[in-house]
Amino acid sequence: MFREKIKVLDCTIRDGGLINNHYFTDEFVRAVYKAVSEAGIDYIEMGYRSCRSFAPESDYGPWKYCDDEKISRIIDGIESTTKISIMVDAHRVKDQQFKPVDQSPVDMIRVATYVKDIDKAIAMLNIAHDLGYETTVNIMAISAEIEKDLVEALEQLAETPVQVVYVVDSFGYFYCEQIEHIVKLYRKLLPGKEIGIHCHNNQQLAFANTIEGIIHDANYVDGSLYGIGRGAGNCPLELVMGFLKNPKFRLEPILKVIEDYMLPMRKELEWGYMIPYVITGILNEHPRAAIAMRKTKDKDKYAEFYEQIRDVM
Amino acid sequence: MFREKIKVLDCTIRDGGLINNHYFTDEFVRAVYKAVSEAGIDYIEMGYRSCRSFAPESDYGPWKYCDDEKISRIIDGIESTTKISIMVDAHRVKDQQFKPVDQSPVDMIRVATYVKDIDKAIAMLNIAHDLGYETTVNIMAISAEIEKDLVEALEQLAETPVQVVYVVDSFGYFYCEQIEHIVKLYRKLLPGKEIGIHCHNNQQLAFANTIEGIIHDANYVDGSLYGIGRGAGNCPLELVMGFLKNPKFRLEPILKVIEDYMLPMRKELEWGYMIPYVITGILNEHPRAAIAMRKTKDKDKYAEFYEQIRDVM
Repeated sequence: MFREKIKVLDCTIRDGGLINNHYFTDEFVRAVYKAVSEAGIDYIEMGYRSCRSFAPESDYGPWKYCDDEKISRIIDGIESTTKISIMVDAHRVKDQQFKPVDQSPVDMIRVATYVKDIDKAIAMLNIAHDLGYETTVNIMAISAEIEKDLVEALEQLAETPVQVVYVVDSFGYFYCEQIEHIVKLYRKLLPGKEIGIHCHNNQQLAFANTIEGIIHDANYVDGSLYGIGRGAGNCPLELVMGFLKNPKFRLEPILKVIEDYMLPMRKELEWGYMIPYVITGILNEHPRAAIAMRKTKDKDKYAEFYEQIRDVM
Repeated sequence: MFREKIKVLDCTIRDGGLINNHYFTDEFVRAVYKAVSEAGIDYIEMGYRSCRSFAPESDYGPWKYCDDEKISRIIDGIESTTKISIMVDAHRVKDQQFKPVDQSPVDMIRVATYVKDIDKAIAMLNIAHDLGYETTVNIMAISAEIEKDLVEALEQLAETPVQVVYVVDSFGYFYCEQIEHIVKLYRKLLPGKEIGIHCHNNQQLAFANTIEGIIHDANYVDGSLYGIGRGAGNCPLELVMGFLKNPKFRLEPILKVIEDYMLPMRKELEWGYMIPYVITGILNEHPRAAIAMRKTKDKDKYAEFYEQIRDVM
């Protein structure tokens, strides 16, 4: 039933960090690392490697920077074969430093980029590759790109050493036929590279679109515990595991960490199915307007919000 | 973009009634009827037509019986072209009475059945058809049926006057490739009939599977407000509307009734994404064990529940 080439990446700490400015406690990050390790998950993403000159330390927790030393302290003493990834924004980089891979706890560097920043992304991918890291590029917000521009970016990436190119549905807009089209386009233009898929859950399609990606041969798959992530959140990791049926997976540690940590966290942080994110998803918009309105007293005025958003389009 | 043949049915009151023994207030039912009417939804299902000898009135609210007089009072004075359906369980019928359609506010009778009760269902469908009602048959729990038995039931249904045969994923088990297979099977064996689709949301696949059904020519589509329904609930109606893009639809009244009624209701009734329902979905089990455990103090002991359920299989 299962396809051995499929690699699952848990992005709980990284994508979840977008809702709390990356202030997760050491206890929580250790618990997640331990659980995904016991569960047999292939990768865990610890957060962003951001420059302190762009993102001042007064505003963010440690998972905005993912210092090697910090990661090493967190994972110390936990038995694991789970590899560690960090994410870097191609468009927010300044004197970014990486040690060679053999001096770092990090195994993989994932470069997040918009199509317009693809040259910056490629420069960064080359640096990471030359230092010995596994590399991926995650092209964000492609539902709002002109396909011709996307094709050009993919053609450029085909010439680089990047190993995995991710389809990212940042706005939670796509449904299955669109995912099929995009994944097939990536496969055609990126011979020899693996395709990844990272979906957002605005329309409750993150898991379904992840399956659709898998059907069309995307082999790198992102999920997060209980679907945590900005706005509507991500594809729930527990659903991906239930679907893949890889005999090396163990679901129990994942269920346990959800019951012990994610349920209490859900009372303090907001993510998941909410109508404002449905609306931005349906309209193929960035969720920022929904995020902003959820912080006001009118956070549940759905009909009003819909009229506002629709009218400015 | 839209396919005119597609008919959308709101099952808020009927499927939602399974979580509160059908005790919705008249105010709520009127508000839902008004909203779906203004939104241009094709059908609204008011509840079950159950026999009081099977289901004593001391245990249930009015939407367990859906008396014609009750429905007439609810809809009185509300402008609407939305048709009204009720559901009848084929296996729980005794001296069931229907008036001829022209003496009833009901337009459509939907017969819910298991494969083993298909003869009872057909008898009921013939009665309803002869009284002038539109008819559908909703074959439940087909993910747990032997396909040969299902095929035989479909062949029998092909010989009846029933207009619509529904694919029902009662356990929230199916993913897209299975839906495609089943919908194509129904179409092949039921020439001249319409196919319907009713999905449960255990694995957050209800909307995606509904889309999959639509792609393969299912033209009758069920949804409920904010996904209300037993356990993990149903396909959210608001998502179906956003997808279909039928110009006759208006989303605003739906968003308004969600904000005014469904959000407060959600604080009192439980439905939606919960790990115990994920587990029964993944394991292709009836949700009853999950429903039972959600009523105990151990309602959030997910890992323990998974081990229990898996071990009795």
